[in-house]
Amino acid sequence: MVRYEYPFNESIRTMLRVEHLFDRLAQLMPRDAAVDHHFALVTLFEIMDVASRADLKSDVLKELERCRIGLTGFRGNPSISEQSLDAVIARLDHAYEGLNQSSGKAGQALTANEWLMSIRSRVSIPGGTCEFDLPAYYAWQQQDGSRRRSDLLNWTGSMMPLAEALSLLLSLIRDSGVPHKVAAPGGHFQQSLPTGRSFNLLRLRVDGDLGVVPEITVHRLLVSVRWLKQDQEGRLRPSQQDVAFELALCS
Amino acid sequence: MVRYEYPFNESIRTMLRVEHLFDRLAQLMPRDAAVDHHFALVTLFEIMDVASRADLKSDVLKELERCRIGLTGFRGNPSISEQSLDAVIARLDHAYEGLNQSSGKAGQALTANEWLMSIRSRVSIPGGTCEFDLPAYYAWQQQDGSRRRSDLLNWTGSMMPLAEALSLLLSLIRDSGVPHKVAAPGGHFQQSLPTGRSFNLLRLRVDGDLGVVPEITVHRLLVSVRWLKQDQEGRLRPSQQDVAFELALCS
Repeated sequence: MVRYEYPFNESIRTMLRVEHLFDRLAQLMPRDAAVDHHFALVTLFEIMDVASRADLKSDVLKELERCRIGLTGFRGNPSISEQSLDAVIARLDHAYEGLNQSSGKAGQALTANEWLMSIRSRVSIPGGTCEFDLPAYYAWQQQDGSRRRSDLLNWTGSMMPLAEALSLLLSLIRDSGVPHKVAAPGGHFQQSLPTGRSFNLLRLRVDGDLGVVPEITVHRLLVSVRWLKQDQEGRLRPSQQDVAFELALCS
Repeated sequence: MVRYEYPFNESIRTMLRVEHLFDRLAQLMPRDAAVDHHFALVTLFEIMDVASRADLKSDVLKELERCRIGLTGFRGNPSISEQSLDAVIARLDHAYEGLNQSSGKAGQALTANEWLMSIRSRVSIPGGTCEFDLPAYYAWQQQDGSRRRSDLLNWTGSMMPLAEALSLLLSLIRDSGVPHKVAAPGGHFQQSLPTGRSFNLLRLRVDGDLGVVPEITVHRLLVSVRWLKQDQEGRLRPSQQDVAFELALCS
């Protein structure tokens, strides 16, 4: 089964991007090869780029607060364990405090590091970080993986409250949706949304062996999924086949 | 010991860039993780970018021909084994033919692949290749590593004559220089170059434990190396210490 997610708004879209980049960073940093740490740095710069553009921090704080209010409403509900509710609220408070106390935008402090910024200014040039471009960066790449990793941990440290808050927030949003089995006859699916409710995230799961790829469109009152298939030249064409899949709307 | 290389001209500079990217590709492709194949694709696009800008192919062919003429001059020289000379010339001829017969610039055929080009147009956007940006790319990333690798081998196949020719050419250029031990008193080194000889590549080796990084400048008649050291903020400052290192000028 392959899972796809689609954001309902720009704020969630940015959060998913940053989460994606933090996931990549978490895969690359524990490795030891210089090439992995090169791309860890590239990813770090991408996080700084995305985080500097948007009101990411205030959006995440606002959403964490919204989740807290939502969860507090379950207090006294006999079908909800008071203990697990307290645990989640404690995690929310911890994430909120951590992010709220971190100063400025993610990675902002790193912009004072001339050496890092000299690399940042060249990573987008094709093949632009060779030894004759950036000899000091080349020397860094010749060091032990563990020494480089300790530098990377140092540079990414100030971003961790954002990573932690995002991870918790998006897991709560994901858990809020209940998956339903639905069908797309002839590859096409549409569903009206209830008025007065707003959603953040559409999630769907489909059998990967079907070889179909979703083209998802979301509006305030309508969700539509068009299933596509790649032709031999790699172009995506509407598929005519019936597709069964699982859909969840998360708020 | 850490080795640094510095090109004497734009043509060698471009060749070193492309070699660097092919090296990276060779490290990433045998791996199995989706993140490695993502960066293999990024590297593939970088090779296409560099190779499309310059007269890379004709420069490599011209230099291979120059090497061939140089080597042919050794024929009949009693201190050179006729057999190894023949072997190198055969490799040169093979590389020349392979590159000469490859049509167009490296990776040019891939520009017809809409799917690849849709990824190429988004890789430079920070966090821009998420599942909601490129669902078909996401589906590709969910496949087995071996299936992705077979696609990558297919896409990079047409570039291999260039990779092979570059690798041979640069190894011959590197072998043409004889390393000499030299000293940089107070961190500064200068050497005049003989008139009437042209060089392609400066190579040097230095003890990595010294923690110094070279700032290399090459002119037609002069080579200078200024040894630098990083201060605590990561800024490079001229080092005052005496530095012994190994220098080779390759033509």
